[in-house]
Amino acid sequence: MGTLRIGGGLVLRPNMEVVRADVLVDEDDGEILAVDDPGEIDDGDETLDASNGLVIPGLVNAHTHVSMTLLRGYADDKELDAWLQEDIWPVEAGLEAGDVKAGAKLGIAEMIRSGTTAFADMYFFMPEVASTVETSGVRALLGHGCITVGKDDETAHEDFQQGLDFAREYDGHADGRVRTMFTPHSLTTVSETFYEEYVPKAREEGIPIHIHANETTNEVDPLVETYEMRPLEYADSLDVLAEDSFIAHGVHVDEREQELLAARETAVIHCPASNMKLASGMAPIQEMLDADVPVGLGTDGAASNNDLDMFDEMRDAAMVGKLATMDASAVPAEAVVRMATQGSADALGFNSGRIESGANADLAVVDLSGEHLTPRHDLVSHLAYAVKGSDVRHTVCDGAVLMRDRELQTMDLDAVKREASERAEALVERAET
Amino acid sequence: MGTLRIGGGLVLRPNMEVVRADVLVDEDDGEILAVDDPGEIDDGDETLDASNGLVIPGLVNAHTHVSMTLLRGYADDKELDAWLQEDIWPVEAGLEAGDVKAGAKLGIAEMIRSGTTAFADMYFFMPEVASTVETSGVRALLGHGCITVGKDDETAHEDFQQGLDFAREYDGHADGRVRTMFTPHSLTTVSETFYEEYVPKAREEGIPIHIHANETTNEVDPLVETYEMRPLEYADSLDVLAEDSFIAHGVHVDEREQELLAARETAVIHCPASNMKLASGMAPIQEMLDADVPVGLGTDGAASNNDLDMFDEMRDAAMVGKLATMDASAVPAEAVVRMATQGSADALGFNSGRIESGANADLAVVDLSGEHLTPRHDLVSHLAYAVKGSDVRHTVCDGAVLMRDRELQTMDLDAVKREASERAEALVERAET
Repeated sequence: MGTLRIGGGLVLRPNMEVVRADVLVDEDDGEILAVDDPGEIDDGDETLDASNGLVIPGLVNAHTHVSMTLLRGYADDKELDAWLQEDIWPVEAGLEAGDVKAGAKLGIAEMIRSGTTAFADMYFFMPEVASTVETSGVRALLGHGCITVGKDDETAHEDFQQGLDFAREYDGHADGRVRTMFTPHSLTTVSETFYEEYVPKAREEGIPIHIHANETTNEVDPLVETYEMRPLEYADSLDVLAEDSFIAHGVHVDEREQELLAARETAVIHCPASNMKLASGMAPIQEMLDADVPVGLGTDGAASNNDLDMFDEMRDAAMVGKLATMDASAVPAEAVVRMATQGSADALGFNSGRIESGANADLAVVDLSGEHLTPRHDLVSHLAYAVKGSDVRHTVCDGAVLMRDRELQTMDLDAVKREASERAEALVERAET
Repeated sequence: MGTLRIGGGLVLRPNMEVVRADVLVDEDDGEILAVDDPGEIDDGDETLDASNGLVIPGLVNAHTHVSMTLLRGYADDKELDAWLQEDIWPVEAGLEAGDVKAGAKLGIAEMIRSGTTAFADMYFFMPEVASTVETSGVRALLGHGCITVGKDDETAHEDFQQGLDFAREYDGHADGRVRTMFTPHSLTTVSETFYEEYVPKAREEGIPIHIHANETTNEVDPLVETYEMRPLEYADSLDVLAEDSFIAHGVHVDEREQELLAARETAVIHCPASNMKLASGMAPIQEMLDADVPVGLGTDGAASNNDLDMFDEMRDAAMVGKLATMDASAVPAEAVVRMATQGSADALGFNSGRIESGANADLAVVDLSGEHLTPRHDLVSHLAYAVKGSDVRHTVCDGAVLMRDRELQTMDLDAVKREASERAEALVERAET
């Protein structure tokens, strides 16, 4: 261990300027030491070739269910409620710890290979995910998804207790690369009394809260009817909105709710692909940006996407942002690149998402030589609209090289794929018999 | 020359079933001879390895302006009219034949590398595109884009005459891989008298017609006001709609126009990425499919996309189809795969888009080993939602291997990229000085 120099290429700076520079990283502390003209930087003990490449912050997938990679393509082209009730939940009912681990390995491998270095995950058997984060070398914010719907009181309490226990026990795991959160599933799948009982416990211990919110009108309308307020006003009344907390989706958010999010400094994690695929709608992202709502970006689970490629997600965000407003200047390239880096990292409370000294050494080197990246009028445009996950040459997290020249350094990719295939097949067989 | 056997993998049949089969191709006639169980097929003189792969019809990009690859990322995040008038047209005014050739080479290389074997192109200096189609080995339907707006009568007549002359001269070029069409730009950029004079000439000689139509409300509204009918009723009054003809976009198409398209058997080429990026709107694709309107798929030019990857386009079509109807079952995976293969091929009048004996031997082998294609619950879902252009292992057109193991066989990719970069830089410099 010592220093790692990423040299010979271009660097995307936090202000979205692209400059010719080298990056020096402290491998022990996992921090960026310097970003400067090649001549101004010390030789590293190790080097990573960025020639004909662009060094970008490692992308941050701020909302996913990583183990759902096992269900990629299992049930498509169905509306959210039917999809959950008829396909996803019956299969998930048979999930075993080993399935979650196999799915997490597959999803993390896919993310590393497409330049993502950190993610936020809400699912079950979370110690399995935490141990996979540990061995794979990525960074994650993890929460055990808690739900009350369809459960008797005792089982639901056990579930919520498990959520708090996981958050307490695993925070700081894997040399600090694992942080934790408390994750009630949503405002409709968790009863009010459970929010009232457990949110204060999480707040007392400074545990961030993350929920799904305002994803579909099917979810928003009954809440408005029951509580005579907007869902996020209801969430606020439960103390769910705070600077360290964030909501996924935010598709159907009115002006008052946007003001509330901005006032509470609570981020919305935009999941455009999932919102399109499940016909949930188009989040008013440009409006939220204008209202100073913090916005991050996430893929959601692979079953509703169907990949974990944040480059796809940036493109989708820019595209849908224009449709939502019928304004082609809305949600421009620069905005989606910020969303996938700084926006997501800030939402998760990670000192990542920026190539600057003092930040976490979480970064990716994008190979610019592809025909689909020729010519090079504007590299920020390319990041948003033309770069593919497969253009990522190297991925570095916490100062450690996780992929070098497209070869994973911490995982056996063939074994990961084989195990995931076997687990997926057995899981579906269990559900269908 | 002789026969080529593509063996060891799976095959996507025209009914969208995936079967284990080998494909035998006649390299001389460029035709598929047989698709059958491996044991039932003769050894080929040559072989192409499809193990751990899926043989699909070569994708057909049914609406593009291939040389606009030179302007990829040049001007983003702007509304269609401003984008054309402030950015695209001023640069295009300085286009030279060599630019169009360099852009065509780049675009064709990009298409071959992402499994596209045929395209429809409307642009300028079309003999340059035709000669690049010839040397690269792909298949294309080409038209010289004719426009009257901003031109005096004499210049406009020269332009239209050039359009007809090109169609006559180049039809059947490159051993029949080049077919031609007559391509007035759109209903608003070409005056009525020119349609009245030139369409009958094209029809007399059996030349297909392709125009942009119903792309934005800015285009539809003035036509409705002027002619007191819907744009496609106006187009029909000009004899533009016919079985051998097709329109691009069709975003704002009402029920009557859909019936008209179905009655005339005129295809709509759906360009979802361009329609999103330019905030043109969402085409009612599921409605059109229900109304028996033939539908194909296209990327449009790279300046409004920003790539020519038909896998992206299938994903976008499935995604936007759901948003347009707010129904997650709309435009399912199978529909977009049909659109990109059979739908587009039928629109262009090519006997391609189906892996069956007697069809053109235009196909691609998709490598299925990627982590993002694991597990394999449903390969048609993967084609629509998860496969990337970079997963294409081999591309074959007209019986000839154009890419083998990701290596182009008919083009020098490095030279293509270098030339395109130089041409793009000089082109923009000319426009900006």
